[in-house]
Amino acid sequence: MARKLSFDPERVFAGDRVAVSRAISLVENELDGSEEFLRRVFSKTGRAYRVGITGPPGAGKSTLTNKLALHYRKQGLSVGIIAVDPTSPFTGGALLGDRVRMTDVELDEGVFIRSMASRGSLGGLSKKAREAADVLDASGKDIIILETVGVGQSELDIAGAADTTVVVLVPESGDSIQAMKAGLMEIADFFVLNKADRAGADQAVMSIKMILHFKSESAWTPDVLKAIASDGTGVAEIAAKVAEHRSHLERTGKLAAKRQHRLEERIRELVADRLRIDFWSAERKRILSSRIQDVMNYSSTPYDLAHELINNFRNQ
Amino acid sequence: MARKLSFDPERVFAGDRVAVSRAISLVENELDGSEEFLRRVFSKTGRAYRVGITGPPGAGKSTLTNKLALHYRKQGLSVGIIAVDPTSPFTGGALLGDRVRMTDVELDEGVFIRSMASRGSLGGLSKKAREAADVLDASGKDIIILETVGVGQSELDIAGAADTTVVVLVPESGDSIQAMKAGLMEIADFFVLNKADRAGADQAVMSIKMILHFKSESAWTPDVLKAIASDGTGVAEIAAKVAEHRSHLERTGKLAAKRQHRLEERIRELVADRLRIDFWSAERKRILSSRIQDVMNYSSTPYDLAHELINNFRNQ
Repeated sequence: MARKLSFDPERVFAGDRVAVSRAISLVENELDGSEEFLRRVFSKTGRAYRVGITGPPGAGKSTLTNKLALHYRKQGLSVGIIAVDPTSPFTGGALLGDRVRMTDVELDEGVFIRSMASRGSLGGLSKKAREAADVLDASGKDIIILETVGVGQSELDIAGAADTTVVVLVPESGDSIQAMKAGLMEIADFFVLNKADRAGADQAVMSIKMILHFKSESAWTPDVLKAIASDGTGVAEIAAKVAEHRSHLERTGKLAAKRQHRLEERIRELVADRLRIDFWSAERKRILSSRIQDVMNYSSTPYDLAHELINNFRNQ
Repeated sequence: MARKLSFDPERVFAGDRVAVSRAISLVENELDGSEEFLRRVFSKTGRAYRVGITGPPGAGKSTLTNKLALHYRKQGLSVGIIAVDPTSPFTGGALLGDRVRMTDVELDEGVFIRSMASRGSLGGLSKKAREAADVLDASGKDIIILETVGVGQSELDIAGAADTTVVVLVPESGDSIQAMKAGLMEIADFFVLNKADRAGADQAVMSIKMILHFKSESAWTPDVLKAIASDGTGVAEIAAKVAEHRSHLERTGKLAAKRQHRLEERIRELVADRLRIDFWSAERKRILSSRIQDVMNYSSTPYDLAHELINNFRNQ
């Protein structure tokens, strides 16, 4: 039995920071009542615009997120930030202690920042990050930034859950740009070449543009913007490009289509989660552990045992 | 309807190279009859010893795999190699064309090499790599090496599906060793510090040992071996360490426990795959697309629609 958190959806809808923070904990830890809470939250979502920021470790995503949030604040918009830190075993990722502090905005009442780190399943993290974004949306934030280190499919999923997805690269990423074609071209609405004061910046921009050139025609052509996030160079242009992409999506009806697709994916995930939980009842766990010996000694096979378990599930 | 491959399990069991190659294609492309084929294959598995080799891009895993295979060949053992290339969007991975050729063994009749690249789901790739290993096992190979670039959970899963898992690092990996603690400590049965003639090798070995020192006590303590795979230095010691780990597992009964755990995981995967396919029938796809508008206009929620779909599935 999970611990029960007392929480008040109305206080979340009113934007109360403590209530929002507790609500995200409820969702992150899948405590009792989180699904019922998310059901209530859902009716208040859909107002915020969601921006995904992804890219390799060291590309300066946190700094860019920080400056972009500052930019929105100066326009009078409130901002929610979900920073996802998948501590991948090889790429390292940023441990929470190493994070670039978002010094410009972290004490600002109009900005809510939440870091989420993966312990275990990245798939689960992706789901929780999107649910946390729902909570921030329902709390009245105008802009939600989903920042994530891109090291695999699940992390791309997080950024891809945004309305506009920005892929941040640096001149040093040049070598791998060719290799990264496929996955990134699918999710990037535009690219930012950060640390553009470093050697090789123009060449990197060229390489990305070369790849973009081969992209099949569509009404929106991803662009490459240069930036130096650390001193704010190019941040206004990035915000302008996000706005341009947003009006493109709204004008063409693609925003609704994108959000509908996201909802369908969400429903498929909920179904898969629920089926897994319902399936692995005490009874079927017992069948698995008693029959596994038959598989170990080759009198049955994994395939036969899987079928047996499924028949048990569907015939009860 | 998928294309039907004609294949003969008996020829696979006899070690016929063409039959083995076609069988892996059958499995990799999930062609008609692959499950029935794998069911037959299963009864012939369990004889081969599976070695997982993983590590960051550029660590020299292919070279080490090549030399290790050569070492086993000289002992009169047959070797199967599954080289998995998850072309992660950011780390780049190795495109197949860039692979280090396994020149020492690729023309050897006693070695079967198969590269598998990810197109799309890594989870699916992990499953297929393990099934391909089953085919090689059933074909009579003594040693199966599962080599994979480690960039995320799914790739670790592949290496973790081995009896003994070797994590290969290089002196340059030093910086990220701290960060990679968690995931690697779980899967590494021992470490190889490759390119040990480079500066910083001893320091890197020390860093890894420091982390190992904090590992909770168990009957097997992971070690760190130095190697220069390109000229074969340390390869015999690596093979000896694999053998030592193997006898440890056999002596303590852990090999059977490990394999039982793997079978249970396999069954859980088979169940999840089958449920997903059965669930998303034409009827329920139709329900989803007709009711999604109610979710879009907030007269329903993703949670309610998911429940409705599940009730439909379980009550029919």
